[in-house]
Amino acid sequence: MEIHELQQLLSEMSLQEKIGQMVQLTGVYFDKGAVLTGVVGEQLPPEWIIQYAGSVLGVIGKDKIYDIQSRYMEQHPHHIPLIFMADVIHGCRTIYPIPLGQACSFHPELVSEAASIAALEASSEGLRATFSPMIDVSRDPRWGRIMESFGEDPYVNGIMGKAMVDGYQQKADTKIAACLKHFAGYGAVNAGRDYNDVEISQRTFLEQYVKPFRMALKAKPAMVMTAFNAIDRKPISGNKELLKGLLRDKEGFEGTVISDWGSIGQLEEQGVAADMEEAAIQASEAGVDIDMMSPAYMMYLEKLVESGKIPEALIDESAFRVLMMKNQLGLFENPFAGLGKSGKLTQHNREKAYQMAGESCVLLKNEKKILPLSVKKKVIWAGPYTASREFLSRWSIFGEHESVETIEEVLQKKQIEAECITGCNILSDAECKVWQVEQELSDKPRDEQWLETITQEDTVVCVLGEHESQSGEAASRAFLTLPEEQQVLFEKIAERTRNIVTVVIAGRPLDLRRISEKSKAVIMAWRPGTMGAEAILDIVYGRINPSGKLSVSIPWCVGQVPISYWDVKTGHVLTEDNSENRFTSRYMDIPNTPLYPFGYGLSYTEFDISDIDVQIGQDKKVHVHCNVCNTGNVAGAEVVQCYYETLYASVVRPKKELIRFRKVFLEPGEKKDVDFCIDQEEFSYYGKNMETVSSGMKLRISVGNSSDHLVSENIRI
Amino acid sequence: MEIHELQQLLSEMSLQEKIGQMVQLTGVYFDKGAVLTGVVGEQLPPEWIIQYAGSVLGVIGKDKIYDIQSRYMEQHPHHIPLIFMADVIHGCRTIYPIPLGQACSFHPELVSEAASIAALEASSEGLRATFSPMIDVSRDPRWGRIMESFGEDPYVNGIMGKAMVDGYQQKADTKIAACLKHFAGYGAVNAGRDYNDVEISQRTFLEQYVKPFRMALKAKPAMVMTAFNAIDRKPISGNKELLKGLLRDKEGFEGTVISDWGSIGQLEEQGVAADMEEAAIQASEAGVDIDMMSPAYMMYLEKLVESGKIPEALIDESAFRVLMMKNQLGLFENPFAGLGKSGKLTQHNREKAYQMAGESCVLLKNEKKILPLSVKKKVIWAGPYTASREFLSRWSIFGEHESVETIEEVLQKKQIEAECITGCNILSDAECKVWQVEQELSDKPRDEQWLETITQEDTVVCVLGEHESQSGEAASRAFLTLPEEQQVLFEKIAERTRNIVTVVIAGRPLDLRRISEKSKAVIMAWRPGTMGAEAILDIVYGRINPSGKLSVSIPWCVGQVPISYWDVKTGHVLTEDNSENRFTSRYMDIPNTPLYPFGYGLSYTEFDISDIDVQIGQDKKVHVHCNVCNTGNVAGAEVVQCYYETLYASVVRPKKELIRFRKVFLEPGEKKDVDFCIDQEEFSYYGKNMETVSSGMKLRISVGNSSDHLVSENIRI
Repeated sequence: MEIHELQQLLSEMSLQEKIGQMVQLTGVYFDKGAVLTGVVGEQLPPEWIIQYAGSVLGVIGKDKIYDIQSRYMEQHPHHIPLIFMADVIHGCRTIYPIPLGQACSFHPELVSEAASIAALEASSEGLRATFSPMIDVSRDPRWGRIMESFGEDPYVNGIMGKAMVDGYQQKADTKIAACLKHFAGYGAVNAGRDYNDVEISQRTFLEQYVKPFRMALKAKPAMVMTAFNAIDRKPISGNKELLKGLLRDKEGFEGTVISDWGSIGQLEEQGVAADMEEAAIQASEAGVDIDMMSPAYMMYLEKLVESGKIPEALIDESAFRVLMMKNQLGLFENPFAGLGKSGKLTQHNREKAYQMAGESCVLLKNEKKILPLSVKKKVIWAGPYTASREFLSRWSIFGEHESVETIEEVLQKKQIEAECITGCNILSDAECKVWQVEQELSDKPRDEQWLETITQEDTVVCVLGEHESQSGEAASRAFLTLPEEQQVLFEKIAERTRNIVTVVIAGRPLDLRRISEKSKAVIMAWRPGTMGAEAILDIVYGRINPSGKLSVSIPWCVGQVPISYWDVKTGHVLTEDNSENRFTSRYMDIPNTPLYPFGYGLSYTEFDISDIDVQIGQDKKVHVHCNVCNTGNVAGAEVVQCYYETLYASVVRPKKELIRFRKVFLEPGEKKDVDFCIDQEEFSYYGKNMETVSSGMKLRISVGNSSDHLVSENIRI
Repeated sequence: MEIHELQQLLSEMSLQEKIGQMVQLTGVYFDKGAVLTGVVGEQLPPEWIIQYAGSVLGVIGKDKIYDIQSRYMEQHPHHIPLIFMADVIHGCRTIYPIPLGQACSFHPELVSEAASIAALEASSEGLRATFSPMIDVSRDPRWGRIMESFGEDPYVNGIMGKAMVDGYQQKADTKIAACLKHFAGYGAVNAGRDYNDVEISQRTFLEQYVKPFRMALKAKPAMVMTAFNAIDRKPISGNKELLKGLLRDKEGFEGTVISDWGSIGQLEEQGVAADMEEAAIQASEAGVDIDMMSPAYMMYLEKLVESGKIPEALIDESAFRVLMMKNQLGLFENPFAGLGKSGKLTQHNREKAYQMAGESCVLLKNEKKILPLSVKKKVIWAGPYTASREFLSRWSIFGEHESVETIEEVLQKKQIEAECITGCNILSDAECKVWQVEQELSDKPRDEQWLETITQEDTVVCVLGEHESQSGEAASRAFLTLPEEQQVLFEKIAERTRNIVTVVIAGRPLDLRRISEKSKAVIMAWRPGTMGAEAILDIVYGRINPSGKLSVSIPWCVGQVPISYWDVKTGHVLTEDNSENRFTSRYMDIPNTPLYPFGYGLSYTEFDISDIDVQIGQDKKVHVHCNVCNTGNVAGAEVVQCYYETLYASVVRPKKELIRFRKVFLEPGEKKDVDFCIDQEEFSYYGKNMETVSSGMKLRISVGNSSDHLVSENIRI
């Protein structure tokens, strides 16, 4: 539809119709036609809203959506189509690794491809919008939602976020609307407790937490979602300064702003709106176009316009943005485009999931090159994850466990001789209760006598980890330990052999001190998705050479968090020279460094990064050059990382910041040039009075293969 | 001296002399006359500074100070006296409980008395200034320096800080200059790691962290010390906006601003000063009057004035403030006033320390009223602290362990029949290494066979805790556990009897889950000081009825921190009604509440708080009334606490805030009225644009005996 036609349409719509576009309801209201089947907040919605609500949340299925859409459009005065949205976070039917794992691939093109496949699968079943990517900088592994982020680095969140948006919105027929979330700062929830307040300075908010949005907005996502939290005690969902001033006016976002589930109504709970009516005023004035599942808009907007408390023009603006989004997706031309275009879990989709799972795994330790194992040597595979299909996550709502193969099945399929023993369940009965897990999906543990058959000659591959329900939204943990019985199992195995390879399945960094100490090799496999088992096996047996790098620090223990490689500089710096001086910024009982740092990850081959050269070109850009060479004897990929440090500034700055990376695939002996070209503006920071400073700086530019393994040169810009 | 005489003196001083007043050196430069015996930073100080430096750090002793002062004044061109300063933090020779413990007394008059005694002891030995009180709001027990604060509450820090300043500066002859520190925000160091960066909003900084300074400045402390940290990435020691704009111009501070140890030089390390010269410019322009132990002022100020880079007027201002401070202490009239006026550790001083130790202890649990014990029943006293004199702290630098009695000695002195067994050392050998402890002061453990003699009929009083070196500056911990061997000892005792009373000695809240679960009674005794043993005994045997209330939350575990009762409101609130709903702001694996909350503490008697009435008087003030009655049968004291909550505001506010408290001593059956009168301005907060909002609020006023045990009434102001 042309813009003027859309404007014409808007002008013909009633106030209720327009408000309808600003309301999103869950599928329960539509499943059996326009019958009210639930409450929103604590209220029954008005009847007209079922007829006019512009979008539906959480429904999937070709036939079902065809049915709802047809009926809705028929009865709608202007036959405006609904848009169906749902949380397609890391794949729709074919499940990819969690975003935190995907980020470890440092392979944005692959992330983009995965998103494009998710869009294909989603649109084929009627979905045309997802609430993804989440690009909340996440530095606290207690926060369950860290799994949904791209980790601790603002730049990686920006790059991966942009890649994902590109993927979702790529193809004309099968694209789905992407939604950057959560704008902004949600990743900094105090003490890692979900939905908690956020306590950061305006400077850090803008510099580190808004940065990924600034980057990913370049991909023109259809939507941005507001965060639950407040920044500077002003909740985002009613924050005009941030939503209009910053997001729209400064960053130029022209799409639709949608609230998080109930976040407009929540303004009352947060004590900044006296009642739901005031919440509706604050959110609509702040420019929140769609109210997801709070009663505010549906109950009060009509009255507020009629009484003159808010201008109808505000409604027009928001409703028009929703219409624009539908139009950009081609829904007016064909509300059923894409429906049925793809099969579920096709071979191609699974292959990509396999590739992504492989590239997401991070090899943390490989003492005496115990890995890869030879398929000729019989090993024991132990732990509940050898027989479990729980490689997905709570945030893969349309993923099906039946399509996940277990480690045991893949071993059989590949005819690899191995003993396979679960040893215990993923969670104990007590833990199931805590985590509200109805049933344990893994097999019941077998007799423990097998433990006694292990000898010091045996190699045991332990596949251990968190339950799916232990990460995701509303899954904060105060302990970062492995589930208790699994830790006990591991200790028992470790008493009998030193030849342990441990594969960790988790939605967050865990406290891996014991695992790391007692295992010869450790693979962090995160939650690897549909093809997790095969990818893990192929890494262990060397068909895949691991290339993942940590997108987030693995802390020493929970008492060290929050921690990140970009922590801000301090005085009293602990160095190698003063390590005996207690008057340094340190804990006395643990090291300052995490167990494994950001950017770190091993390979089965070795890489040499050399010939570093930093120049300011005639184009005024900073040119960083280096060579990377595969000096080992298997093919592999290295992630060359470029960081910078502002050596002297008017304000205290991060110790270092990632500014570029490139994943380089190299045959044995192969050597490649890597060149990074960086605009000087990219080094800019907020000065004392929040003015942008982008010159007069002394910089240290570093290149290497981990945030703690770098070679540097200084320049002035 | 009259002001005009002081001005005359200043006008006669050379530039070097004036800069001298702005420099503080440690005693090593003075011990053997004007011989350079060390470096400052990495440099040898210029020779003239020994002759002119205005203050000396860390020297004590009547004769020594008499000697240094006499020689110095004689050779000084204007015979200006030195001022001797040192860290007198919780007593000088007679050591009181650590400030965190003193705060638990909720008895500011007693805190003031203790400070006045410390001043007497200090001035008697030549000290005329201390770097105390520290009023840094402290919410993270990992931070070792939490022991030096008055805990998590801004109001308590303000009240206690003011009381301590009053005490130090009370008496004409023996007063010492007090120093509020650290201005400001140091208590919020990220992840509880000492000297780390501070990440808070400007609003929280001003509202919660500056508040105690605003309150305590009313006592007119002679000095304020700058904090190491930056606020909004701008280090305080070079922060004109905060030191001049806020502290002097807005809050009206007229005294001397002193840096923390080396904190001016540290500006270079923090990356905001290109070199030491620039650090000197930034700090002097920001109004730091005294440079403690950095090379900046002594090496560069002279050159900077001569080259016109800073005006001499700036030097004049600072030097004059130091002269003013010396004058206010009467040093010009008599540089030896107070010297030798008091004995060490007099009976009176010890009695006050005993009283304070008793009032600082918090009774956390008393199942089936196991406490107080009868002296008639023989019990076993166990744990390394039964034989240890380590009841002081690393921050009681002039305290002497020889003057501390052990539990064992006090039992003997009081002729109480009891078995006394250490069981283990305070720290294991490995822990001694970690904590840089040269030797273990407690006895070596006795044979463990005694454990087998314990039966389930026995009552065991365990006295367990941290080592002195585990708290204080540069003593951050990532674990909040008891030392390992002590935990093991406790578990072994707990296997044999349920009748356990545990007394915890610590400089911070510890993870007390196991202790609390397995003990029938728990007493938090903090680091109780010189008279700790006797106070503990008298609580256990009922001569003292405990009345302490927690000045800081005892968290469930380290994964729950930072936590405080004044945490800011959120959405998704966890309530009793929705405790099964995981989509609330919570951890899944632990409760949201701390193990023991702020304001909590039991007594051997019971109190009833009733008849709560809240009115706005004709004077426009808020009048809160209640009755408190001792309904038990022993005398005791209750701390009546008054909190408020802003029910609706333009920004998100704390869940509750303490606004008044009163400690009430009551005989059995006695009843007293408690009245609080509160100016409406005290309820004010910073609005959206940092404007002060002090009306148009709906408030909930609550009264009770713990932050989690309150009765409320709502009012509008």
